[in-house]
Amino acid sequence: MTTRFTATYSIETSGDPKAAAAEMAGESSTATFVPIPGERAEIAALHGARVESLEEGASTSAGRAATVTLSWPLGNTGPSLPNILATAAGNLFDVKNVTRLRLLDVELPRELAATYPGPQFGAAGTRKLIGVPCLPLIGTIIKPSIGLTPAETAGLVAQLAAGGIDFIKDDELMADPPHSPFEKRADAVLDVLRRHEDKTGRRVMYAFNVTGEIDEMLRRHDYVAERGGNCVMVSLNWIGVTGVAHLRRHSSLPIHGHRNGWGIMTRGPAFGIDFRAWQKFFRLAGVDHLHVNGIDNKFFEPNESVIRSARACLAPVFDDGLPGYEVMPVFSSKQTVSQAEKTWRAVGTTDLIYACGGGILAHPDGIEAGVRSIREAWEAAVAGVPLDQYSIERPALRRAMEAFA
Amino acid sequence: MTTRFTATYSIETSGDPKAAAAEMAGESSTATFVPIPGERAEIAALHGARVESLEEGASTSAGRAATVTLSWPLGNTGPSLPNILATAAGNLFDVKNVTRLRLLDVELPRELAATYPGPQFGAAGTRKLIGVPCLPLIGTIIKPSIGLTPAETAGLVAQLAAGGIDFIKDDELMADPPHSPFEKRADAVLDVLRRHEDKTGRRVMYAFNVTGEIDEMLRRHDYVAERGGNCVMVSLNWIGVTGVAHLRRHSSLPIHGHRNGWGIMTRGPAFGIDFRAWQKFFRLAGVDHLHVNGIDNKFFEPNESVIRSARACLAPVFDDGLPGYEVMPVFSSKQTVSQAEKTWRAVGTTDLIYACGGGILAHPDGIEAGVRSIREAWEAAVAGVPLDQYSIERPALRRAMEAFA
Repeated sequence: MTTRFTATYSIETSGDPKAAAAEMAGESSTATFVPIPGERAEIAALHGARVESLEEGASTSAGRAATVTLSWPLGNTGPSLPNILATAAGNLFDVKNVTRLRLLDVELPRELAATYPGPQFGAAGTRKLIGVPCLPLIGTIIKPSIGLTPAETAGLVAQLAAGGIDFIKDDELMADPPHSPFEKRADAVLDVLRRHEDKTGRRVMYAFNVTGEIDEMLRRHDYVAERGGNCVMVSLNWIGVTGVAHLRRHSSLPIHGHRNGWGIMTRGPAFGIDFRAWQKFFRLAGVDHLHVNGIDNKFFEPNESVIRSARACLAPVFDDGLPGYEVMPVFSSKQTVSQAEKTWRAVGTTDLIYACGGGILAHPDGIEAGVRSIREAWEAAVAGVPLDQYSIERPALRRAMEAFA
Repeated sequence: MTTRFTATYSIETSGDPKAAAAEMAGESSTATFVPIPGERAEIAALHGARVESLEEGASTSAGRAATVTLSWPLGNTGPSLPNILATAAGNLFDVKNVTRLRLLDVELPRELAATYPGPQFGAAGTRKLIGVPCLPLIGTIIKPSIGLTPAETAGLVAQLAAGGIDFIKDDELMADPPHSPFEKRADAVLDVLRRHEDKTGRRVMYAFNVTGEIDEMLRRHDYVAERGGNCVMVSLNWIGVTGVAHLRRHSSLPIHGHRNGWGIMTRGPAFGIDFRAWQKFFRLAGVDHLHVNGIDNKFFEPNESVIRSARACLAPVFDDGLPGYEVMPVFSSKQTVSQAEKTWRAVGTTDLIYACGGGILAHPDGIEAGVRSIREAWEAAVAGVPLDQYSIERPALRRAMEAFA
């Protein structure tokens, strides 16, 4: 097999970047401690990592910086995400002479498509399930994060559905706790949504947090699917790419991917993984929606990073640059009418989920006005009409602009 | 449920540490953006995270440091490792005002034992399988890391077995590649080991790297188990706690846990997880052996850290401090006769795997002398006899001391 996969790193070393790159290549491929008589050269030729490029950056007192691209034959790992990760993101991060190491991006070959069919629904499939053809899905998160009973959750869902919401999700802190057992919560919520649909013809998507042990997740998925539910959510980092891929093979519903814990891997400047690389693994594993934080969010992440992440979700996943495997970026964290236009300008698509908490629930005129105001803000953004103008005869939007200025 | 789990963090904040701790508590429990009339206080009392302690450290120009312990009711998550991780290691790492955050340790209640039976074999079970009663398991890794055919691998295994080795493992870069398909490799290696046992009565443990998709891992486990194999290995970070726990429920063999990628989560000083916290999750999930690097290793990790890690594997896993769930620490990376005594002094037990590469294979008198020298170095360490003295009439040890000085 001559196909290769590549990874690009930003590194710093106290020594020579060329030597550091060579050590990285060895450590992640044919490194050995004794010569294997005769066959050494052949093994290195067939299986060795290659330094594809090395561009030296600025030196600092701490060392010499470089951008390094390595490649490996796909034959080293086979078409296996966990083993590609063990190669491109494994012991490399422990190499002594590499004093900073960030995995910036990976280029993965289309050969992986046979093993990993990727998102089953994506934006088009998600839209079809609930009949929202154009605008972003206007969403919200059940809060308080934890503590509501199934009946209380369902009560809130009823209000949100009546208010015209498209999408609701469990908080990631809430999966199957004793005070809100998964099946009781699903029963209560799905009952409300069924009645809402019977009455109005409108469907709402609810992402149930099925995060748990492998069999639990499949069981919870089935419970939701059999009762007419239309989405499941998982904490990606804690079930891993293999957990997601397993759920994907089994699933008949969109998979909503929550990235909690992501800061552990990316926030420190010296060692980590950039979202651009990380998201490719989870898209191949099969998520349909992927959290990217939001513009002007409450967390540490700057807008440029959020925008890069959202664009990454919509960019090609394979090294051939062909479309496919796009997922819906999920914007959240302090989102209100104020960020619709910025988000639209940044990503240029409405194939996204725009999740507001306070931005809907704390609208002075209530939930319905809250939902309407967000939808109107997006209409204005897409039409290229300034909010000041668009809100003239739209009181819900006007009030939201005042409340969340 | 009144049982709680706790997590201790080292933090830095540009503001008041008390405020930062309160924000962390809110973010990881009952945070909301709108008051829930009437019931807010009750929910906070039942489900809120508590700041159990806060000890302020030295201030720097970057901010104020503190050690903070938070606790949550186990009822928030139920006995579920991925959901405990989503709580204690989730969005907390994104909180803006917390400019450094390391998860140092977690205290987990014994209630988790009903869901997570932990290591099935541990040291005692592992020893029993291969009849090594006292000394560490003397081990090695198949190298080159990648590139050997099943027949070449088996040839090396035959030499190692004849040399008296106790334990051999696949490299983590090697699972099921086209040049060494898993089943062909298992056939070839197990055939060699069966013949070795028939001839000598001695068993060798071989850890086959089964890392892959969930069903693949179970299938590979079964393949090994049905043919008399005695160990499987996985890349922990890429299959996650749920992947390990799933394999554990199915498994009839010891699970050898490889931690490649660990540097991503721990090497940067500002954000990360300490091994002490991390290893508890994987012990509960059910690994039997856990990599801890080695003393005087080739990687970045200082000896104090390696020693702390190894001790952590042998310390109580639950907050009641009772024994149980201990796993065998696996020492590797540039290990030779030189580190046996230091390792023994540091951990005070022989319930460990001591994996040498060059330290065995590059012994000037060959593999058998290499294995013997390592075993003799451990005999000397345990007996408290200096190597200089113990090696007087032991040429294998003497030669190794000269070669690896």
